[in-house]
Amino acid sequence: FLRAYERLKDELLNDRAFNFDFTEETRQWVAKMLDYNVPGGKLNRGLSVIDSYMLLREGTEVDEEDFYLACVLGWCIEWLQASALVMDDITDNAYTRRDNLCWYKLPTVGLSAINDGVLLKCHVQAIIKRYFKEKFYFMELMELWNEIGLQTAMGQMLDLITTHTGAKDLARYRIQGYRRIVKYKTSYYSFYLPVACALLLNGAKLSDYVELKNVLIEMGVYFQIQGRLPRLLRRPSSYWQGWNRHRRLQVLLANCPGYGTG
Amino acid sequence: FLRAYERLKDELLNDRAFNFDFTEETRQWVAKMLDYNVPGGKLNRGLSVIDSYMLLREGTEVDEEDFYLACVLGWCIEWLQASALVMDDITDNAYTRRDNLCWYKLPTVGLSAINDGVLLKCHVQAIIKRYFKEKFYFMELMELWNEIGLQTAMGQMLDLITTHTGAKDLARYRIQGYRRIVKYKTSYYSFYLPVACALLLNGAKLSDYVELKNVLIEMGVYFQIQGRLPRLLRRPSSYWQGWNRHRRLQVLLANCPGYGTG
Repeated sequence: FLRAYERLKDELLNDRAFNFDFTEETRQWVAKMLDYNVPGGKLNRGLSVIDSYMLLREGTEVDEEDFYLACVLGWCIEWLQASALVMDDITDNAYTRRDNLCWYKLPTVGLSAINDGVLLKCHVQAIIKRYFKEKFYFMELMELWNEIGLQTAMGQMLDLITTHTGAKDLARYRIQGYRRIVKYKTSYYSFYLPVACALLLNGAKLSDYVELKNVLIEMGVYFQIQGRLPRLLRRPSSYWQGWNRHRRLQVLLANCPGYGTG
Repeated sequence: FLRAYERLKDELLNDRAFNFDFTEETRQWVAKMLDYNVPGGKLNRGLSVIDSYMLLREGTEVDEEDFYLACVLGWCIEWLQASALVMDDITDNAYTRRDNLCWYKLPTVGLSAINDGVLLKCHVQAIIKRYFKEKFYFMELMELWNEIGLQTAMGQMLDLITTHTGAKDLARYRIQGYRRIVKYKTSYYSFYLPVACALLLNGAKLSDYVELKNVLIEMGVYFQIQGRLPRLLRRPSSYWQGWNRHRRLQVLLANCPGYGTG
């Protein structure tokens, strides 16, 4: 899986198909920005494409080409996630990410990081076009990614608006609202997207799997709510740096399944 | 043209096709964000799609439907531009835009504006899908927009990197480098994109118009260089707020056609 990353990176930096004449400086910048932000996480969303695809193909021979295409879509999810994290860190005034300084906190980067976030998302479209343009499911794949990009941005907006409103009126920050945030902001791209990619790779039509989609999104909400509270309580105090007390309380309460079901 | 904007906005806020169950708060937020950032400029990029299309159709009857589709693509350029401006204002620490406070400077907005920038770009894809999915040129249209999104982000990166390097080594900020920045950051989406949209609406294949593309991009570079210096000198001092002296000097020198051709 990590070898696939190196190949994708090299192609992005050297392929004439991307219609940009890199200068030495831009090539170095993009390389460094990718290495800093794309790998280095748990990679479970990316690996989930491969796992799902291998399950679907159980009992049949998976050749190297098919396996590589699953890796490519897995990395696209990691790329999309990197795009969102780079920008969210700025919005949240975060300090560290994956035990390093956040990308925008590096002295040479600063708010240029916003454009890097934009670029990472453009890369996803470029990679998908490069590898899947001739596939019969190309249109469906593009639409899937565009739609999930929109849901995720709307989820982030819900989160930001609720935090604002919440600051005035904590009672409104209820479990239903939290479910909606998690559904759009996280569940679509973390739980549904990997499986949907595997289905398309395997030749399925997504409209035949609407029930599965709903189950996966519910699963995402459940895991998120169940998993976050214990993890949050285990976080070192440095994690909370830059968050005000009110926001911390909101996050803790919102992650507590018994809270505010009324 | 402005009526087309109202229709597009209403559709984005009410259409079930976008697969998002708006809350009252999110609907209001998106409506306000759109009104604040999308119209209100000179709209010359958007109108340029219509002008180009009408020229191509000269001598033939243009029905209401065809005219509206040209308006839709015109507004997509204004939407894309709004996305870039909302984010660039943050990166540049700008204070005003179009005689108003920058969107991110509003007390209720702040750095949430980054996500609004992301969302505006998602809207472009959603609008194009809604209106052009059944057209035979749909794929070419999507690719055009994706490619130009990438070029524009790379141009912005070039600009940001050069500013950084320039701070150490002004001699490197030469006219060739400036030409490259303007080409990618501005010329593609401001000069080539409107005409390319009109050509696709008229049923052309873009690969037949590579020469035209090169001419339009050169035109863009020329107008940018020629137009900026007088405009810059006319700017009020508030325009320069937040820029250090060194950066001001760079900008002025870089806009002077006689500078640094060696």
